Amino acid sequence: MNNELFVKMITDSWQKQIDATNKIFDNLSDEELMQEVAPGRNRAIYLLGHLTSVHDRMLPLLRFEESKYPELKSIFLDSPDKAVEEIPSAQQLGQQWKEVNETLLNHIKSLPADEWFTRHANISGEDFSKEPNRNRLNVLLDRTNHLSNHRGQLLLLKKKV
Amino acid sequence: MNNELFVKMITDSWQKQIDATNKIFDNLSDEELMQEVAPGRNRAIYLLGHLTSVHDRMLPLLRFEESKYPELKSIFLDSPDKAVEEIPSAQQLGQQWKEVNETLLNHIKSLPADEWFTRHANISGEDFSKEPNRNRLNVLLDRTNHLSNHRGQLLLLKKKV
Repeated sequence: MNNELFVKMITDSWQKQIDATNKIFDNLSDEELMQEVAPGRNRAIYLLGHLTSVHDRMLPLLRFEESKYPELKSIFLDSPDKAVEEIPSAQQLGQQWKEVNETLLNHIKSLPADEWFTRHANISGEDFSKEPNRNRLNVLLDRTNHLSNHRGQLLLLKKKV
Repeated sequence: MNNELFVKMITDSWQKQIDATNKIFDNLSDEELMQEVAPGRNRAIYLLGHLTSVHDRMLPLLRFEESKYPELKSIFLDSPDKAVEEIPSAQQLGQQWKEVNETLLNHIKSLPADEWFTRHANISGEDFSKEPNRNRLNVLLDRTNHLSNHRGQLLLLKKKV
């Protein structure tokens, strides 16, 4: 097994979840985006902001570049839904979501396979030498599961046939 | 990068989702298990049966052993929730869920790392030679996302604090 193939397995899995999630967001009207995925739970727009912020923060975590929209953190990571009264518009969040994922994808495509097995930004060199599985590729694997988790919730808003 | 470490990354990710999902099921009462995750959507007991059947079918797909509970397929894979009137009890499904995952885990732990990069049962040798990423490890990666997806839905039943 070579590194290229292994990286392909995990990056393909990431992109598959991104594409599937885009398909849901693209089919939600602005009104549906304001609906809760289940009674008393997060609204779709909150999940859009939450996922955008989590993915934006992968840029520095993967040592690609600085976070583009650090201001999303206090609204969509540090606060639960409906705790912050004024949130960005659906249109703005939708643009930021696309932009963050495109930026990630460009870095993902151009990172040499061996580089994926180096440490991410939140682990010391010493800890990494003991736990080499805590590498950049593992961050992508973890965030793919995070995305799947919320995609399952967003699917509940899909119109019933 | 060696194969052992690749395999560890993906099998750890699988087991982490299994543990997190068990934590949800273990905390749902029999009554809560009969609730829909959102109005008009799947009941938790259906998702329990669905996940059990999908994981059971990984046993032959990964070329480990025969499926243990093939009878679950018609109820939990081929039919939507509430289409089949008589379904197994929560207790029975709970036992089957644990048993299937333990059986999988034993095989997962003992499969030599190189073996993970061989073909799964549903791809021909010819196709596999063209697409070596469609290996047994990729099945586990895909099913981890499937599990995350439904775990996100089950989380909606968690009591609000």
